[in-house]
Amino acid sequence: MSRPSGLIANKGLELLTFGTPNGHKASIILEEIKEAYGKPDYVYQSISIMENIQKEKWFTDQGPNGRIPVLVDHDHGKLSIMEGSAILSYLTRHYDPEHKLSFTNDPELSQCEQWVAWQHGGLGPMQGQANHFYRLAKERIPYPTQRYVGETERLYGILDSRLANHEYLVGEKYSIADIANFSWVNVAYFAGVQLHDFPNLYKWWERINARPAVQRGTAIPAKSDIVNERYQERLKEDSEFKQKEDDLADIGKKAKEQYNYKYSSP
Amino acid sequence: MSRPSGLIANKGLELLTFGTPNGHKASIILEEIKEAYGKPDYVYQSISIMENIQKEKWFTDQGPNGRIPVLVDHDHGKLSIMEGSAILSYLTRHYDPEHKLSFTNDPELSQCEQWVAWQHGGLGPMQGQANHFYRLAKERIPYPTQRYVGETERLYGILDSRLANHEYLVGEKYSIADIANFSWVNVAYFAGVQLHDFPNLYKWWERINARPAVQRGTAIPAKSDIVNERYQERLKEDSEFKQKEDDLADIGKKAKEQYNYKYSSP
Repeated sequence: MSRPSGLIANKGLELLTFGTPNGHKASIILEEIKEAYGKPDYVYQSISIMENIQKEKWFTDQGPNGRIPVLVDHDHGKLSIMEGSAILSYLTRHYDPEHKLSFTNDPELSQCEQWVAWQHGGLGPMQGQANHFYRLAKERIPYPTQRYVGETERLYGILDSRLANHEYLVGEKYSIADIANFSWVNVAYFAGVQLHDFPNLYKWWERINARPAVQRGTAIPAKSDIVNERYQERLKEDSEFKQKEDDLADIGKKAKEQYNYKYSSP
Repeated sequence: MSRPSGLIANKGLELLTFGTPNGHKASIILEEIKEAYGKPDYVYQSISIMENIQKEKWFTDQGPNGRIPVLVDHDHGKLSIMEGSAILSYLTRHYDPEHKLSFTNDPELSQCEQWVAWQHGGLGPMQGQANHFYRLAKERIPYPTQRYVGETERLYGILDSRLANHEYLVGEKYSIADIANFSWVNVAYFAGVQLHDFPNLYKWWERINARPAVQRGTAIPAKSDIVNERYQERLKEDSEFKQKEDDLADIGKKAKEQYNYKYSSP
């Protein structure tokens, strides 16, 4: 595929995305809506964040923050929508008329907003920082590594408690609250968090990951190497990868010890 | 006042809050709604995060994440609402019937959701980390200091661009999109960000800060020492404070130089 340089559709929905947790949120909800209603069709473009395509003017004209995902609704005045939680809200408002994945009345409506917001302002940003310091930064710096991996673990504990007595996060129904949180829980190991230590959350993750629309959504724009399922396969297949991961885990463990980190949640 | 140990109201709205940007979001919208409609009355409790009251069971029964603010609506089934953006949404849905501070139709409704979400998932978390590494952490660590102060500056640049041609963030009307973002911009200097370097944003900040309801909202639960206005006064009044701030700024500047930080936004 050639490098994206502008919008490609002039009707329907167009998603500008990449294979990250925030990207998956948008592609999962689109696939779930299609699964539920048989429509709408949409096109997507892969916006490589390694090549900083999201910083180019044609992209920031749509999403001024220079971050994926951005959704463009060509049928509603070419409205551009940035921010995952706003995309989930917009798509269910216009394309989920029977509210199969959303809510219309309080208390469920507010509870759904709360758990989407909790992911958007907490789990996402903090797990993103854990990724950075545990794995991606050029230096391994102990203090922020244990700070963010630890905070992510605290947040997983909150979800685990919530799911002790609930099959889904809100109203006993699979909804955008689950989709938002799933997208980040689906890359737990990549951030140095042992998902299987959170048994209720693990079962919820398995349940959602088995959904056909979720499998399709997480393969947009391409199959991901960092999702939990693929990560676990690589540990078994690739001894060099396993060694590198063990080394990272060891550095993470020492960072926690150095700062006397104690897991505490909720 | 004695240490809070449970809810104190049994009707109306009850806000559990503290004098932080996220707390101010909730108290400003409550004061704006009261200014606009003369109601509803509400009570609040000061939840000292230095004493970790937000981690106590009676609190986490209302807000399982153990963070302020939490709003309880005793008149709607004692519904508890965590997360600033969910509080803004809930309060305008039920207590802003003429939509003086909110929107009902797209594109403005989505644009409002987008800018609230942008604050909730970007400006808030990143400026919060800037506060931590620039000022609050026990160690001064250059890499995360320049990372988060720098990212906060990038985000201020996004707001500054948006406000070059708009008096308010969405639809030429003061709304919850402005309230959400104002609450963090109102503590810019505390995070090591020079607000006056962003001229459009500075004028917007001044305009909003002059609103009577905003002045009342930012004084709940008590007048804040960290808001821009008070920060600037302290620089003039207190030479020891000024010296400490100059020292922090110097450390921040060196951290940026060490990592070749270049401002780039949007």
